[in-house]
Amino acid sequence: MIDYEGLAALLSGWDNITILTHKSPDGDCIGAGLALCYYLRAMGKRANVLNSDGIPQRFSFLSEGYTQQEFEERHVVSVDVADTQLLGERLEHYSDRIDLCIDHHRTSKRFAARNFIDPDASATCLVLYELFEHMGGTPSGIVASCLYTGIATDTGCFKFQNTTPAAHRAAARLMELGADYEEINRRMFDIKSRGRLAAEQILIGGIRYFDEGGIAVIVITNEFIEKYGIDRAELDGMASIPLNVEGVKIGITMKQQEDNPECFKVSLRTVCADACEIAEKFGGGGHVRAAGCTVSGSADSALLRIVSEAEKYL
Amino acid sequence: MIDYEGLAALLSGWDNITILTHKSPDGDCIGAGLALCYYLRAMGKRANVLNSDGIPQRFSFLSEGYTQQEFEERHVVSVDVADTQLLGERLEHYSDRIDLCIDHHRTSKRFAARNFIDPDASATCLVLYELFEHMGGTPSGIVASCLYTGIATDTGCFKFQNTTPAAHRAAARLMELGADYEEINRRMFDIKSRGRLAAEQILIGGIRYFDEGGIAVIVITNEFIEKYGIDRAELDGMASIPLNVEGVKIGITMKQQEDNPECFKVSLRTVCADACEIAEKFGGGGHVRAAGCTVSGSADSALLRIVSEAEKYL
Repeated sequence: MIDYEGLAALLSGWDNITILTHKSPDGDCIGAGLALCYYLRAMGKRANVLNSDGIPQRFSFLSEGYTQQEFEERHVVSVDVADTQLLGERLEHYSDRIDLCIDHHRTSKRFAARNFIDPDASATCLVLYELFEHMGGTPSGIVASCLYTGIATDTGCFKFQNTTPAAHRAAARLMELGADYEEINRRMFDIKSRGRLAAEQILIGGIRYFDEGGIAVIVITNEFIEKYGIDRAELDGMASIPLNVEGVKIGITMKQQEDNPECFKVSLRTVCADACEIAEKFGGGGHVRAAGCTVSGSADSALLRIVSEAEKYL
Repeated sequence: MIDYEGLAALLSGWDNITILTHKSPDGDCIGAGLALCYYLRAMGKRANVLNSDGIPQRFSFLSEGYTQQEFEERHVVSVDVADTQLLGERLEHYSDRIDLCIDHHRTSKRFAARNFIDPDASATCLVLYELFEHMGGTPSGIVASCLYTGIATDTGCFKFQNTTPAAHRAAARLMELGADYEEINRRMFDIKSRGRLAAEQILIGGIRYFDEGGIAVIVITNEFIEKYGIDRAELDGMASIPLNVEGVKIGITMKQQEDNPECFKVSLRTVCADACEIAEKFGGGGHVRAAGCTVSGSADSALLRIVSEAEKYL
């Protein structure tokens, strides 16, 4: 594997770059994709960033000045994509021609011609932060905001176990470079619409407990989402709720798929237990304390399957 | 005013030290008090830390190894106390004989013989962190945990406007020194009892909005606290809730006093408006984005008075 210096040299020699991010985008992949794109453009290169689902409203403040460029694509780079299956429908045709994969997921499928995976980094944005340090040139304020967003969201605002001293030091430097941390943190972690608050109240009221309160489950159905007119992107933050109840060791959030009601996207959050191991039993993956997978079946049967597996890890 | 070096030299020459913290203790005053006490003891000095209300259950993990020492008190130091009125009943007899006040509140009354106030520090624990850097010697793991707790709680886990690059760099170093950040963050920010969750949901459901949603108010009455069997110390975190509703610029939480039902402790959280200025109108104080005061009257009249004042700042 190349080191940061090698990666910096490689990218410095490239131009006309398409950057791919993963479907159901989160703060780290949007932050990383836009940061890399802005940074390369500031170097005088041409670059675009693509997402199969577009950029969700809650991240739009990072892409305000962004427009697609016209160029003949010469290199394809993926950021924060652990598996080509996560590229989504609109980008899957890139699967077998990705030149470089930049990521921090330990479970990376290393699908690209070159793979730069730093599993010790709290976020892909932290990988990019280190990379930019090696490429020289001072990241602009918007690049700093993008990187800060990825680091903050992937570490749960510096709360999760995956937070490192390096993540804090990067945050300090990114603040100095102009990252709009107060606004980002409010947008990412605090502000909720009245509708979302109301929905949250009902979901919290409906938490189901198993194994003497060691496992807590929230089930979000399509019916519920429609009833409260909830933006699906807003639901990402819900995944941490069940684990925050006193005594809970494994928190599970199940979200019914819009286009496939017989299928639930499951988020696992744990203390003690290995969330990634549980997710892998269902073909998913992720990190030790936060992982995800997809479980098929009705709400009840999907719940039964995931809880039965999770129980083994208590 | 003495600088950090002078402060380090001063404290190094003292022994038999009583450390005072403020009533209704929060993470920063408990963290600072215990950190200073542990640090001085590790230097071979005798020191105790006192609080008028004792150490609340939620901070007890920081004082597990702590016992009071017997000695003839020679010096008195207050930490995180902006005004002697905040010492509380059991400590008010110290008011006129405090040798040194260490604090970060801009509104400090500078009541001690020597006052070391660093208003640019995110927390009093950050002042102590800098101080210990100047005193030499490596802080122990428990000192690191105490300091981390104060910095994390006063910055809302690095989210608030008062977060500085220095706060992040201190956090990085404190993690390396053994601060149990994951456990601390879970305890301070995430874990809630089922009772607290239920109470929170009811309070959120009862939020009152003024000025087209620019001001949001939560009123917590004694009746409510009794009904749900809530630990009053647990209610501190509630103060940030009203500001987290989309569109709210000033969030107000009013808590009826246990011993004086005609009196409400008011917490102000703001974006844009100066919370401290509003609080000062009612004899309170604090920071630009977070401040507090006491307002007397029935729930309705107290609410009317504080909202009428807050409106002027929208």
